[in-house]
Amino acid sequence: MSAGEIIGVGLGPGDPELMSVRADRLVRAARHIAYFRKAGRPGRARRIVEGMLRPDVVEIAMEYPVTTEIRLDDPAYNDCLSGFYTRITQQLAGLSRQGQDVVVLCEGDPFFYGSFMHIYTRLKDVTPISVVPAITGMSAAWTATGIPITWGDDVMSVLLGTMPVADLTRHMEQADALVVMKVGRNLAKVRQAITQSGKLDRAWLIECASMDQQRVVPLAQAGDGAVPYFSIVIVHGNGRRP
Amino acid sequence: MSAGEIIGVGLGPGDPELMSVRADRLVRAARHIAYFRKAGRPGRARRIVEGMLRPDVVEIAMEYPVTTEIRLDDPAYNDCLSGFYTRITQQLAGLSRQGQDVVVLCEGDPFFYGSFMHIYTRLKDVTPISVVPAITGMSAAWTATGIPITWGDDVMSVLLGTMPVADLTRHMEQADALVVMKVGRNLAKVRQAITQSGKLDRAWLIECASMDQQRVVPLAQAGDGAVPYFSIVIVHGNGRRP
Ligand SMILES: C[S@@+](CC[C@H](N)C(=O)[O-])C[C@H]1O[C@@H](n2cnc3c(N)ncnc32)[C@H](O)[C@@H]1O
Ligand SMILES: C[S@@+](CC[C@H](N)C(=O)[O-])C[C@H]1O[C@@H](n2cnc3c(N)ncnc32)[C@H](O)[C@@H]1O
Repeated sequence: MSAGEIIGVGLGPGDPELMSVRADRLVRAARHIAYFRKAGRPGRARRIVEGMLRPDVVEIAMEYPVTTEIRLDDPAYNDCLSGFYTRITQQLAGLSRQGQDVVVLCEGDPFFYGSFMHIYTRLKDVTPISVVPAITGMSAAWTATGIPITWGDDVMSVLLGTMPVADLTRHMEQADALVVMKVGRNLAKVRQAITQSGKLDRAWLIECASMDQQRVVPLAQAGDGAVPYFSIVIVHGNGRRP
Repeated sequence: MSAGEIIGVGLGPGDPELMSVRADRLVRAARHIAYFRKAGRPGRARRIVEGMLRPDVVEIAMEYPVTTEIRLDDPAYNDCLSGFYTRITQQLAGLSRQGQDVVVLCEGDPFFYGSFMHIYTRLKDVTPISVVPAITGMSAAWTATGIPITWGDDVMSVLLGTMPVADLTRHMEQADALVVMKVGRNLAKVRQAITQSGKLDRAWLIECASMDQQRVVPLAQAGDGAVPYFSIVIVHGNGRRP
């Protein structure tokens, strides 16, 4: 019997029509699908494929261990997550040895800040494994603003809301176009950095790009409250153009 | 009669299966398609949809004016291109007034360094116009290397081979992950900058990502000759991970 393949399938930003033709085909045909979720939640990637699955599909929900009690910089946090990834990769490798293919559902593009990367690096030398790229959340976000993101020689930098404010500001000053991911609980910090870099009047907040709940607002007019997990801040480039 | 819509449809990196379900549907149904090409060439975007079009499709080839005689920094270059964009947008606006929808074929994501942006900004206040985002060339490029591009808090910067070498080097030193677009004739310059930034041993050259002619080589081992128009240089991030 030949080993089954683990396939990290990028689903794109959320709108099911923005899945690639290949992703659509693989998801509809899959006998085994796996996806990450928080305990007790439906799972963000799982929600995108609602209504597309075979009636006899076997679902493997990979539930993140509860980590809110442990600080990000505590080594115990890393150990806890690392143990989790070891367990789930063993489960997937077991299915592969039984000859089963498994489609792992991924938000956006799997290799761009994705959780699938932790499975991929652990399995790539042990198990047949492949990746289907996808439309990123940021592409859907700048499309939602109705303004092109980069022109001519514009430099675009992608930053994370989880970075320290000084680092954010320094990088923001140097790029022409900006994408800030993982804004969620970091909105106040991201706004502070954008303000310090002098770009607040050109910044946009995009929530849930391409989804039903999509919302596009100038960052200066966004409230101070929490924003959804699927939130991106964008500053458009303004480079040379004919 | 209601006005027709101009739709900038991102086709993704080149593999037709990496088109979105929406792009696939729009391309197959289109009565009018338009695409850029160099005089006498088939057109790169046009090639991706070969075999997908209606038999009665009307094709509008938008041929770039020959500009190789004019230097990029000569104002005449800009005037020449600007006149070209004015002419073609008038043609597309005319079709829209006649009630015709037009699918404009775009390589990769239309709003990411795309030629469609020049049509979009000229028509957006005059004509119904919309954009379908797509998988970028860079997503296909990092997927082709089989290595994830960004981890944890990695900063990713997108640079252009057309930039001066000093600017390239400065930005390369500051980002964790790098994508260099428009490598084509600028390969020697890009390699010089990457070498100066101390990242040559981690840099990859990807030609024609996701296409039949795809080629992935360490940049240090790439020759000095010209590389195809569809070439990207990548340095992967190496950030925190469990
Ligand atoms: C762990 S990263 C995964 C990124 C994903 N692999 C991609 O290619 O977009 C999660 C972050 O992506 C961003 N994101 C992804 N999809 C989004 C969407 N549809 N709308 C807004 N933000 C999105 C948010 O900033 C979120 O915090
Ligand atoms: C004018 S830009 C257009 C980018 C496009 N809109 C996108 O989203 O990728 C053209 C550059 O994109 C890069 N590119 C696009 N598709 C590619 C592919 N499949 N393989 C390698 N490079 C690609 C090359 O660097 C090329 O010079």
